Amino acid sequence: MQRLVLATAAVLGLVTALPAAAQFRNAEAAIKYRQSVMTLQNYHLGRIFAMVNGRVPFDAKVAAEDAAVVDLVDHLPFVAFTVGSDTGAKTAAKPEIWKERAKFDAMAVKLQEETAKLHAAAKTGSLDAIKPAVGAVAEACKACHDLYRKE
Amino acid sequence: MQRLVLATAAVLGLVTALPAAAQFRNAEAAIKYRQSVMTLQNYHLGRIFAMVNGRVPFDAKVAAEDAAVVDLVDHLPFVAFTVGSDTGAKTAAKPEIWKERAKFDAMAVKLQEETAKLHAAAKTGSLDAIKPAVGAVAEACKACHDLYRKE
Repeated sequence: MQRLVLATAAVLGLVTALPAAAQFRNAEAAIKYRQSVMTLQNYHLGRIFAMVNGRVPFDAKVAAEDAAVVDLVDHLPFVAFTVGSDTGAKTAAKPEIWKERAKFDAMAVKLQEETAKLHAAAKTGSLDAIKPAVGAVAEACKACHDLYRKE
Repeated sequence: MQRLVLATAAVLGLVTALPAAAQFRNAEAAIKYRQSVMTLQNYHLGRIFAMVNGRVPFDAKVAAEDAAVVDLVDHLPFVAFTVGSDTGAKTAAKPEIWKERAKFDAMAVKLQEETAKLHAAAKTGSLDAIKPAVGAVAEACKACHDLYRKE
């Protein structure tokens, strides 16, 4: 069984995906990973905003699903700001991240606290609970982008 | 409060992210979204395989976290195979997906069944339970890729 598992994994390129000692194969892989997280986050946060601003009818189930995705994926990207992944590939991350790591990490924790609150608010099914919670998530995004994202 | 929420969302580009009637802004957005899901899936599945094949020491907590991510994200990409997103941008998706949609969707459901089993197996903390479960996920990936992915 294990041989079959590994053969299939090899076909999929999964076996050699990670060196034993590293989170990511290289800086490019780390950048691609964190940008993928941001793509998912923006999409699902955007869906919640579309309901909050009335451009799409509010659907409590959909909002809860979106909030669950945001809550989960916002725990993922910060390990991908690996040493050396500030240059060498297309990234909007400012080098200050690596100089002020404790401050950056604290902002990540703040974001995660707010996404947990949004998730809890969305579970209640109340649009009035979601509105301030999603606003706080957006504030946490913006606070970090203002300091640590180029453009 | 709502005005502040919307102002912040506008700065982040979230307000205009979605037209009211569509899941995705355009084909490019749909392709970027589903490729982002695949990036996350490959990374977290790769981490589980690194433990299964002994290249990284088994850590039950990490494996359970990885399986949770795989289980969640594998529910996301299939709505992003929108009509018209088979061409016009860099995608490995074959046009057969849109011609054999029911078959494609059935393979998506199969994948989701296997990722749910992997998630359940990982929660038990048993590497012996994870091995066949992650193998079945890889088989479901491969079966679909063989039919519907270029290269």
